[in-house]
Amino acid sequence: MIKEGDMVYLYKDERRNYLVKIQGGRLHTDLGFLELKDIIGKEYGEYAETNLKHAFYILRPDLHELVMKIKRKTQILYPKDIGIILTKANIFPGARVIESGAGSGALTTAMANFVRPNGKVYSYDRNEEFLENAKKNIERYGLSEYVEFKLREVTDSYDESEVDFVMIDIGSQWDLIDAAYKALKGGSRLATICPTFEQLTKTVFALEEKGFINIETEEILVRKILVRRGKTRPEQRIPSHTGWLVFASKISKKAHGTQTTQEDAQPL
Amino acid sequence: MIKEGDMVYLYKDERRNYLVKIQGGRLHTDLGFLELKDIIGKEYGEYAETNLKHAFYILRPDLHELVMKIKRKTQILYPKDIGIILTKANIFPGARVIESGAGSGALTTAMANFVRPNGKVYSYDRNEEFLENAKKNIERYGLSEYVEFKLREVTDSYDESEVDFVMIDIGSQWDLIDAAYKALKGGSRLATICPTFEQLTKTVFALEEKGFINIETEEILVRKILVRRGKTRPEQRIPSHTGWLVFASKISKKAHGTQTTQEDAQPL
Amino acid sequence: MIKEGDMVYLYKDERRNYLVKIQGGRLHTDLGFLELKDIIGKEYGEYAETNLKHAFYILRPDLHELVMKIKRKTQILYPKDIGIILTKANIFPGARVIESGAGSGALTTAMANFVRPNGKVYSYDRNEEFLENAKKNIERYGLSEYVEFKLREVTDSYDESEVDFVMIDIGSQWDLIDAAYKALKGGSRLATICPTFEQLTKTVFALEEKGFINIETEEILVRKILVRRGKTRPEQRIPSHTGWLVFASKISKKAHGTQTTQEDAQPL
Amino acid sequence: MIKEGDMVYLYKDERRNYLVKIQGGRLHTDLGFLELKDIIGKEYGEYAETNLKHAFYILRPDLHELVMKIKRKTQILYPKDIGIILTKANIFPGARVIESGAGSGALTTAMANFVRPNGKVYSYDRNEEFLENAKKNIERYGLSEYVEFKLREVTDSYDESEVDFVMIDIGSQWDLIDAAYKALKGGSRLATICPTFEQLTKTVFALEEKGFINIETEEILVRKILVRRGKTRPEQRIPSHTGWLVFASKISKKAHGTQTTQEDAQPL
Repeated sequence: MIKEGDMVYLYKDERRNYLVKIQGGRLHTDLGFLELKDIIGKEYGEYAETNLKHAFYILRPDLHELVMKIKRKTQILYPKDIGIILTKANIFPGARVIESGAGSGALTTAMANFVRPNGKVYSYDRNEEFLENAKKNIERYGLSEYVEFKLREVTDSYDESEVDFVMIDIGSQWDLIDAAYKALKGGSRLATICPTFEQLTKTVFALEEKGFINIETEEILVRKILVRRGKTRPEQRIPSHTGWLVFASKISKKAHGTQTTQEDAQPL
Repeated sequence: MIKEGDMVYLYKDERRNYLVKIQGGRLHTDLGFLELKDIIGKEYGEYAETNLKHAFYILRPDLHELVMKIKRKTQILYPKDIGIILTKANIFPGARVIESGAGSGALTTAMANFVRPNGKVYSYDRNEEFLENAKKNIERYGLSEYVEFKLREVTDSYDESEVDFVMIDIGSQWDLIDAAYKALKGGSRLATICPTFEQLTKTVFALEEKGFINIETEEILVRKILVRRGKTRPEQRIPSHTGWLVFASKISKKAHGTQTTQEDAQPL
Repeated sequence: MIKEGDMVYLYKDERRNYLVKIQGGRLHTDLGFLELKDIIGKEYGEYAETNLKHAFYILRPDLHELVMKIKRKTQILYPKDIGIILTKANIFPGARVIESGAGSGALTTAMANFVRPNGKVYSYDRNEEFLENAKKNIERYGLSEYVEFKLREVTDSYDESEVDFVMIDIGSQWDLIDAAYKALKGGSRLATICPTFEQLTKTVFALEEKGFINIETEEILVRKILVRRGKTRPEQRIPSHTGWLVFASKISKKAHGTQTTQEDAQPL
Repeated sequence: MIKEGDMVYLYKDERRNYLVKIQGGRLHTDLGFLELKDIIGKEYGEYAETNLKHAFYILRPDLHELVMKIKRKTQILYPKDIGIILTKANIFPGARVIESGAGSGALTTAMANFVRPNGKVYSYDRNEEFLENAKKNIERYGLSEYVEFKLREVTDSYDESEVDFVMIDIGSQWDLIDAAYKALKGGSRLATICPTFEQLTKTVFALEEKGFINIETEEILVRKILVRRGKTRPEQRIPSHTGWLVFASKISKKAHGTQTTQEDAQPL
């Protein structure tokens, strides 16, 4: 049963859908308004009617909606990129992970969801406005106890060590590679996203220099298909590029001397 | 410190990497063999040497490695598709989810990882050989307590109800839509993957008929970039198609009468 | 030297570029206007100035510009699709080719360009408005002597036979397959474009039934890269789908009996 | 009627297809051999039988087959890339165009086909082995009178001037930009293909420096769809990357001073 404070995803159709927190006030749509208090006591899967008698379905918001409907002050990481990060990062219930910067809190939300109930996301940002916004988003989603926000620029090191994963989501990734190296557990991965080619190559070469291995770069593309009777086809325009995702594994200092480059590695 | 029974990802380079469980025996490679017992007591991030003095790095396996290196008896779901499912399904620590069929246990592994510590994956398969293989994979990964395997064909209904997510990964999805509808919590999603166009349209139309809403179809493409000094470029061949992912939300029966089709929904 | 009646491509930057025919009148831009007569006597590669002293470069329009800037009454075929058609159709100087329908004349322009000087494009359309528009476009481009327009619906057959190529660019392709078969030279190809999946499968199966072989379907995607110092990246949104191109080869009736399906064809 | 010396495309199925010149000798296949002389006197669209009574269809080779089946000593340009070049280059019957290098003659073939009957392709290569191979391919295709091969390294300039198009298909494109500039007609385009990112940016910046405008970079992707009853789907692996195509327009020296960068161009 839905109660005050719950998040609901009010869905009419592809264009009309809203992520709202149940509390006082009205949701205004082009099909009339909904009194949000009236949703209290209903079940997910039921509907609520506007004053103009249009039904909006009350769905459970999944990570996808939390991310896409987040209040933005910055560019966000999209579900397509978050999804692959969730599979290539050492994230699990109980994990301790770092991110720089917090951005609008999109990836923070995803990571907080999956480190529950006893893990933690340490989220750094030097921009107070962004951090405050991210914090509010996380509070709104009821995930505050799994996130520790830190307003500061990271130069030399993070406060944490032996963390399971580090996400670097700032423009000059190379500045944080040392700090990330120190913070990570041995054998664990960091990730970063590079919108431009120049950033990508500079980041990868800096990772190589620092001794990271297993460096992989990939780009994720999503293409929606509109399935309609007699006229099924891909959508006509798609978002093509957000950034290249880079993943790299930390090995301990004493393993560095042994490292062979990919080119050197030859079968006997 | 690595101990007997731990999973490690032994990484030399892009072509030579192995997911192994630490126990007796040797791992044979084209660069010599490793005595696995010798890895006990080392830390992740260190290396182990073959008898021919080649270093293999001891990395933590992430979901990506668990999935890609799983012992296969069937086609598997790939990380690109699992990633997006993780963002569009109501999966979280504590969630109760269903999948049909178990396949080789790739998605099972991913879901088991994220429903920990007090959720459960109910994994159905009518093929005993497949189910046994999936079970062994899950045991090997130490995730058995989060998965309940069920050897049976689902016709009318699953054993569970009020589950948070249902994944249908069989060839005739439409046969399981009724059962999935009954098992799901209101307002929650099911997902399925359709390798062919005919399967896709038949599935989507069956979902529409059953009253599911918010039906979305998408395809995920991954493109690796090889970042090398002076010769950075995308890889020359990429896997293009695994299947189309379909997502749909359950609404309760009493909401069905109110349902307007997407085409009907017009601004006032 | 540019003379009255020449086509020029006036280029300022990515957003400001115009395909114009040199004659009386002014071209109005947000950077002032150009007196077109003033361009007479200049050379391609020079520039013309607006009344506000902004330079527009006088470039030679290539097929790409003729197609993209064509006056449209219909959806057009894009250069990405025209390009692949040019390589998979039996088009060459002197070729005789058919198209149904004329559309806005985009493919007509491309084919007329390449069948010169002694070939011919037979362009059918049952819609007078479209045909008149296509005709005007072709006149404007100075290609009229290579195109014969025919205002009529094709049901049973085209007026021509032994043509080198047939392009079917209408919505119910299957209706023209008989006519195309009759018109084509043996061993030559037809092509068609299908925006939807249902159209694609229906078309391919109709081609198979008629005895066409070597049936291939492909889709062309174009992705622009913005090369800028320090910020090179793919453009963020791309056109994803125009249609699937289908190509098929005619074999003569007496070869039909011998035809083996792809599945039957087995090495001995 | 097919006569000695004609090119035919012998097609059995997707895996068994051959581009052959009709002359003495046999074509050996896994379904038996064909006596090529027996094809003389047949029509395109008919079939020829192997000694084991398997029918091979006699199709007309289009550009696509000439390119894909060319005898290779080098990497070739693929039809997907050739197609877009044909629409963005000033190629037409009668055009005079340059290419460096000749490679295996794939693009040479395409351009020779379309500059007929009174145009010419000037094809430069400094590698004798490659040039001889390209020459033989062009002879085999009966296009020799439209191509002039030149065995020499281009440093300062080409032998021709006022050409309609220049294609640079060598690894250090920037070395030929001066020569291409001198050879091109004003307002006409050059094109080049860059397999790596570093080559791409270096090339584009060199073109900018030389004063070329209208510089565009694009990549073409092709995805085949396998249309089969009840199991239509995209092919599972696709070629992802050949190279980025760069196009740029020459403007005359006196226009250079007026040039505004894209960033400078602002509406008044």
